[in-house]
Amino acid sequence: MITRTDVERAATRITGHVRTTPVARVEPGIAAPAGELWLKLEFLQHSGSFKPRGMFNRILAARETGELPAEGVIAASGGNAAVAVAYAAKTLRLPAEVYVPTTAPAVKIAKLRQLGATVVQHGSEYAEAYEAATKRAAETGALFCHAYDQPEICAGQGTLALELLDQIGELDTVLVAVGGGGLMAGVAAALDGITRIVSVEPETAPALHAALAAGRPVDVEVSGIAADSLGARRVGTIAYDVAVRTGVQSLLVDDEQIVHARRLLWDRYRVAVEHGTATAAAALTSGAYRPASGERVAILLCGANTDPADLVG
Amino acid sequence: MITRTDVERAATRITGHVRTTPVARVEPGIAAPAGELWLKLEFLQHSGSFKPRGMFNRILAARETGELPAEGVIAASGGNAAVAVAYAAKTLRLPAEVYVPTTAPAVKIAKLRQLGATVVQHGSEYAEAYEAATKRAAETGALFCHAYDQPEICAGQGTLALELLDQIGELDTVLVAVGGGGLMAGVAAALDGITRIVSVEPETAPALHAALAAGRPVDVEVSGIAADSLGARRVGTIAYDVAVRTGVQSLLVDDEQIVHARRLLWDRYRVAVEHGTATAAAALTSGAYRPASGERVAILLCGANTDPADLVG
Ligand SMILES: Cc1ncc(COP(=O)(O)O)c(C=O)c1O
Ligand SMILES: Cc1ncc(COP(=O)(O)O)c(C=O)c1O
Repeated sequence: MITRTDVERAATRITGHVRTTPVARVEPGIAAPAGELWLKLEFLQHSGSFKPRGMFNRILAARETGELPAEGVIAASGGNAAVAVAYAAKTLRLPAEVYVPTTAPAVKIAKLRQLGATVVQHGSEYAEAYEAATKRAAETGALFCHAYDQPEICAGQGTLALELLDQIGELDTVLVAVGGGGLMAGVAAALDGITRIVSVEPETAPALHAALAAGRPVDVEVSGIAADSLGARRVGTIAYDVAVRTGVQSLLVDDEQIVHARRLLWDRYRVAVEHGTATAAAALTSGAYRPASGERVAILLCGANTDPADLVG
Repeated sequence: MITRTDVERAATRITGHVRTTPVARVEPGIAAPAGELWLKLEFLQHSGSFKPRGMFNRILAARETGELPAEGVIAASGGNAAVAVAYAAKTLRLPAEVYVPTTAPAVKIAKLRQLGATVVQHGSEYAEAYEAATKRAAETGALFCHAYDQPEICAGQGTLALELLDQIGELDTVLVAVGGGGLMAGVAAALDGITRIVSVEPETAPALHAALAAGRPVDVEVSGIAADSLGARRVGTIAYDVAVRTGVQSLLVDDEQIVHARRLLWDRYRVAVEHGTATAAAALTSGAYRPASGERVAILLCGANTDPADLVG
């Protein structure tokens, strides 16, 4: 279980290592009926997503308690968590070992190597890479950094919400995309009792939605256009607990609505985000979430590790 | 001649019609030696560039003095000024007629029509479209909105600088891209005596640079990758006067440096800007401008009407 206090501690810990990302106030044209609308431009974060917030918090917290081994850090991910852990390790001058499934694109692997990480390709999907990475961590003693289901990871992601509240002052609702739920957990813990949290997932990757329906985290099939960032098969236990305790709402959108939202964000604001990020915006643009008149809504634009080639024309 | 007072009046006038665009504080990694660095994210403006600031100011100023005819507005441009005038006219429910050279891309013309403008294709370059538009304005009585060389246009663009100063508090230097010089004129008038203004142009479209060398606005040949937005053949007289009066510095960068800067902005911050905008950043990334240690520098990221297809890979 994580609380606002954990997030506040994380914010202090990671100051100077992450960027304070700006917020854009925009007219509520993409929402109906009219509320007030803010975009949190977190895609400007180091490594192109919010993920370094959690990684820095995990690593620096371990350093504080003397639990950061000379062997450095280890993680399993083919996506933004991998780039973030490699970035954080490079900044902190630590060795990083990253297990990625053999299906990970060559450009992602090149990027990780460029950041100085040792890349191990293992298994055909995340679960297998994860398995191998945890085994290896036990052997080497390196600090295992989970992509979403560790308290320090979730608390680190939540710093984005404290920053947002500080920037806007007052806020009714935050729309957040959910994969394994680390981001949502941190945001919901930080804003518990202050704002409504609406989690948004693709219909084809509904880990949190299915967990809330089943009354516990359960495995789901994952596919679809946002699966590279939101395709966790099972929501984290921390995320599940926080969602239930704080009453997080859960919405689903389909791939067509995600693609449409991503294009709208480019057409209206000239921001190029990845499909996982557009998923949060799609709750508004599709009408799946309808703010009340005057409701103050923020969308977390949390990543842009995307090829923007299809945005024009 | 325009002054800070004109810009302040413009700011009051256009409030509510333009977006307040956010500023991102980033580590000065792309500049050497290290200063402090801010990015003004003006590409988030309506229509994808700063140009509506000037257009709204021009139109609303005419309305205040009873000089806004029922015939609406008319302009000549194949670029961002055209989209901006069409956008402003649509918002204010006025007819708009836009003269574009026959070389303007079909997608730009479709965009203008979509915004409700009447599009007239005339001549093979801007100068001919401009000629025809001024003639037509005299016939119809519509309000002519220049792309850069009218006091209200320049003063409107300058509101971006007042906003920036308000957001940052203290600032030593602003890097601004120059085409016809309307943006630079407004910014320099607004920040006169407060910050250093560094204007940046492509070597292949050096209208201001050539004017400062010649002691008056002179025609230059224009070509190169940023010519679609910075390709004015002659800098405006207002811009020239403001530049001389306020001591604007003038730098040139080459196409390769512009392309490199545009890619760096994507790689480091995930912002996709057009080549004209990357030109301002190129002064830093190429080393053409070297801030002193601790110097507080802002880059105006003033437009993103670009196809981002070439940013990845
Ligand atoms: C851009 C982006 N958005 C959202 C998420 C979802 O985060 P979480 O797995 O913490 O739910 C991810 C995860 O990789 C991501 O990369
Ligand atoms: C994106 C962008 N940047 C800079 C400029 C230059 O502005 P000005 O012509 O006022 O110098 C323009 C002009 O079209 C533009 O569109």
